[in-house]
Amino acid sequence: MKLGAIEAGGTKVVLAVGNDQGEILEKEVIPTEHPDITVPKVIAFFEGKGIERLGLGGFGPIDINETSPAYGQVQKTPKTEWVDYPFGAKLKEGLGVPINIDTDVNVAAMSEAKWGNATDVDTCLYITVGTGIGAGAYFHGQTLKGLSHPEMGHIKVRRHPEDTYEGTCPYHGDCLEGVAAGPSLEKRWGKKGHELADDDKVWEIEAFYLAQALTSYIYILSPERIIMGGGVMKQQQLFPLIRKNVLEMLNGYVSSPYLTEKEIDNYIVSPGLTDEAGVKGALYLAMQE
Amino acid sequence: MKLGAIEAGGTKVVLAVGNDQGEILEKEVIPTEHPDITVPKVIAFFEGKGIERLGLGGFGPIDINETSPAYGQVQKTPKTEWVDYPFGAKLKEGLGVPINIDTDVNVAAMSEAKWGNATDVDTCLYITVGTGIGAGAYFHGQTLKGLSHPEMGHIKVRRHPEDTYEGTCPYHGDCLEGVAAGPSLEKRWGKKGHELADDDKVWEIEAFYLAQALTSYIYILSPERIIMGGGVMKQQQLFPLIRKNVLEMLNGYVSSPYLTEKEIDNYIVSPGLTDEAGVKGALYLAMQE
Repeated sequence: MKLGAIEAGGTKVVLAVGNDQGEILEKEVIPTEHPDITVPKVIAFFEGKGIERLGLGGFGPIDINETSPAYGQVQKTPKTEWVDYPFGAKLKEGLGVPINIDTDVNVAAMSEAKWGNATDVDTCLYITVGTGIGAGAYFHGQTLKGLSHPEMGHIKVRRHPEDTYEGTCPYHGDCLEGVAAGPSLEKRWGKKGHELADDDKVWEIEAFYLAQALTSYIYILSPERIIMGGGVMKQQQLFPLIRKNVLEMLNGYVSSPYLTEKEIDNYIVSPGLTDEAGVKGALYLAMQE
Repeated sequence: MKLGAIEAGGTKVVLAVGNDQGEILEKEVIPTEHPDITVPKVIAFFEGKGIERLGLGGFGPIDINETSPAYGQVQKTPKTEWVDYPFGAKLKEGLGVPINIDTDVNVAAMSEAKWGNATDVDTCLYITVGTGIGAGAYFHGQTLKGLSHPEMGHIKVRRHPEDTYEGTCPYHGDCLEGVAAGPSLEKRWGKKGHELADDDKVWEIEAFYLAQALTSYIYILSPERIIMGGGVMKQQQLFPLIRKNVLEMLNGYVSSPYLTEKEIDNYIVSPGLTDEAGVKGALYLAMQE
């Protein structure tokens, strides 16, 4: 059986045709533009390819409540031309196949659990730190969702004593995303993250914020593994700093062999599927009835 | 079929015999003392009553991972005489029946979902604010657990600008529990919560911290209902203050009809089972195979 997979990100959309064994047979990447440009391109890619179901991992707030009249509709996002756009409905109308929808980070967590760096555990959290900060959780065979989907990047964090930057979040100023996503690095320091690779202070502050968020996620969700991806996490020097800060902040409170100096390297890890976590997750989503 | 239910709290243990319809037939409350005193009393209560299974909702960190060698064992708790006590194993040994174990707050969330104020939704969060702060989540028919159980009371919150109290948590000083549980009220203001009922500043600060935590829980878990119980929440004036702060902090970011001035009274609510949430949850736990 052929299945369609879409990973719709804020800057690019990854399109793939795969099979029900989870293999990707064909892939294409297009930029995320105005929906009137992008969505016809998406439909054109899949047309005539005989897909029987479609999985969509969508960026930004997207309504993933199947009982909602706005299921598959994009919600508040800084990409204003997508606000309230009925993404799921347009795809269903254009391609005439059933569609399963979840967030980009939820499907990434799902595919890391199925094929990546969390195949040996029942619960994992996937965090992306890039243009924004988002996270998805896969617990005992289900992605985490309730009232809506989580928006974990918008929690408040305590400020680093040496950081007075006001934050970039249009809704909350200095929430986690406001002080630790890629754009905040660039605005605070006047250079992009990869140009700051050698500046220790930059990564000390970045790790302080991300570790604080991870500590909250551990207290609230207790995942058995945390996978960190996205553009900012390409700075590999962040990993040891984050791990050290997490252990210090937990201060031994959560009893687990993972949360020790010896094992934390196997607890907070990079994605196993590198850049394919999203699209493979969308394929796995399409594989669900 | 007769079933046993135990709600083991930090100050008292509620014991009940119920049936598989969820009805409580007999109940007794004993104080939480040294385990060598308390556990024989628990066993004596159930002996000869013909219970076929037991559900235990346990206070404090308790190992609820069924595959762990320490399943049912009490972990780090300020009640030092209980640390590492094999609570589950001792009960099983004493009564010779299968036992299901979860945290006190997880079973409270479960029973609110089954019989209380969250019967109409698929996901809920139960928070107790008393001697400590703990929370349990019930999502799509399962309580939330992973590496361990959540310890939601220990997240860091930003400090209220007028509050310099150093916090009571032996592990983290001014984490949420350290600045907002009952003992912190008493130490900060020199009186117990119920003696401070008329002091607006007390509840403004308390609501600021609790609302901040709720906002994080909403971003991270997205529950469809939040139920707040425990001794401190008997101060009913807290509810409108918390609701108002939550809406202000979210600042319209999470789209949901519940998160509006009109509906928030039906989103952040008191327990429906009042003081029986815990023991009824333990009974529901015993009802699970």
